[in-house]
Amino acid sequence: MCAQYCISFADVEKAHVNIQDFIHLTPVLTSFILNQVTGRNLFFKCELFQKTGSFKIRGAINAIKGLTPATSEDKPKAVVTHSSGNHGQALAYAAKLEGIPAYIVVPQTAPNCKKLAIQAYGASIVYSEQNDESRENLTRRIMEETEGIMVHPNQEPAVIAGQGTIAMELPVKLLIFGCRALRPSVKVYAAEPLNADDCYQSKLKGELTPNPYPPETIADGVKSSIGLNTWPIIRDLVDDVFTVTEEEIKYATQLVWERMKLLIEPTAGVGVAAVLSQHFQTVSPEVKNICIVLSGGNVDLTSLTWVKEAERPTPYQSVSV
Amino acid sequence: MCAQYCISFADVEKAHVNIQDFIHLTPVLTSFILNQVTGRNLFFKCELFQKTGSFKIRGAINAIKGLTPATSEDKPKAVVTHSSGNHGQALAYAAKLEGIPAYIVVPQTAPNCKKLAIQAYGASIVYSEQNDESRENLTRRIMEETEGIMVHPNQEPAVIAGQGTIAMELPVKLLIFGCRALRPSVKVYAAEPLNADDCYQSKLKGELTPNPYPPETIADGVKSSIGLNTWPIIRDLVDDVFTVTEEEIKYATQLVWERMKLLIEPTAGVGVAAVLSQHFQTVSPEVKNICIVLSGGNVDLTSLTWVKEAERPTPYQSVSV
Repeated sequence: MCAQYCISFADVEKAHVNIQDFIHLTPVLTSFILNQVTGRNLFFKCELFQKTGSFKIRGAINAIKGLTPATSEDKPKAVVTHSSGNHGQALAYAAKLEGIPAYIVVPQTAPNCKKLAIQAYGASIVYSEQNDESRENLTRRIMEETEGIMVHPNQEPAVIAGQGTIAMELPVKLLIFGCRALRPSVKVYAAEPLNADDCYQSKLKGELTPNPYPPETIADGVKSSIGLNTWPIIRDLVDDVFTVTEEEIKYATQLVWERMKLLIEPTAGVGVAAVLSQHFQTVSPEVKNICIVLSGGNVDLTSLTWVKEAERPTPYQSVSV
Repeated sequence: MCAQYCISFADVEKAHVNIQDFIHLTPVLTSFILNQVTGRNLFFKCELFQKTGSFKIRGAINAIKGLTPATSEDKPKAVVTHSSGNHGQALAYAAKLEGIPAYIVVPQTAPNCKKLAIQAYGASIVYSEQNDESRENLTRRIMEETEGIMVHPNQEPAVIAGQGTIAMELPVKLLIFGCRALRPSVKVYAAEPLNADDCYQSKLKGELTPNPYPPETIADGVKSSIGLNTWPIIRDLVDDVFTVTEEEIKYATQLVWERMKLLIEPTAGVGVAAVLSQHFQTVSPEVKNICIVLSGGNVDLTSLTWVKEAERPTPYQSVSV
């Protein structure tokens, strides 16, 4: 390792061994049209097909496996987390695998389909208000009452290592969490909504800069700010951060639906929007092969009031077969 | 062969050779939840990922290849068809591959996204009214004016042979168009909307019985009646026909979206609805492995006013992980 982070690349490798019997090896798909529009070769890692509908199951199972050693007496009495949805579903599912009760603190505003799925996996939902204080107080109280162990959605090292296993399954194994010196030619780009740009602001200022207020974005999966454990990794290993507008996210999401027939959630459209953005055209044409993680597919279909009348988009005009 | 049809199994095999360099080998996906709900092992052949968004490209390319021999002088001046959408897109694409002008007669009521895609592939759209007479008169006129060759959406033998190639790609090659004596254990079931049940009525009466009037169904891809060339194949080789209500089609379609994250069009939901139906429970439990062709994914997203509020469906209740 070149620097000290909360996890090492070896942790990611270990996580991959821990979880691989419990998750899907999701396919990597390509799209002629999207290659044509962007002028690059795009590889879409389809984590929307993953167990529980998002990549979050990777971190959740890795965390749960770490909490449950050989003897059943050591099993935790409960696990607790707060989550806008996908980590909540994932932890509920992972806890059920091991027969551990799970308590998920969810903001009232989370998509209905995510809440229902959490309950369907047998976990208990506790509703918080849409602010950090309410969420944290409630989480602490539930932990005390249930003697439960917290599995943080994005700062728990076992979760971070688990999420990193996506890289192990790519056609070319991108060593995102490894030392950059091992594979300096691979670039790592982050994408986030302009309305929730704490990652961009942190990179700009060179210090962890959380979103100053609860962000308003259709990409509900990235409303949480990055934290103390993920910031050093992002600071050192992410080459650039691309921010995209709500309109760009919606356009990209709908394009993936219509063109690839993949029902991604808008959060998964953020990365696609970044690659489609004007700003991305400043990236060297030598960056030819790009892997985009389609992070999940848990969409509340009744909320899709923003879907636009089909129009003849630019890509169409230049279709050559 | 056991009987004489407009095509033989050898035609399907030849078609497969003709088209395989021009189409996708689409994946076969499974769903834990849908297996659990139906108590069978379902295999979904994902033709929504096929070129032009539906399996219809198979027949269109096979037909076009048959029309274009070695020398370019023999090339037809144009191809003409009428189609509620997917065959139109497919023929437009296939004709463009060979540089042949294509004229597609489309009812005004066809989904907007399908019309746009036909135009995007460079074909000319001619609008007819929503009745057989208008459609046929217009088609004949266009054929005369352009000296074009008709490629019928479902009665042209080269098209029928092309569509049959799906069976060649299944894990177990189902010899749908072959002699049943070769593989008597494979059952072939048809599914259609109750509102467009010409196939069911024909089987019931033992003679070709087209829909008496233009059917009203959300499954716009199966509004056309079966015809003289397909009826004998259906009569002899289809074991049973399952009809499903509009509500069942909508429910099945939405279930595939939410559970499998596959953006199928409602027509592709018809087969799923059949397997989910009460009536299908009368099929012997020995029929364990079932392949369902998800025929296409060309959905007009703005037309989805029927999408229902997420609810906790029966399958959820019995989730075991």
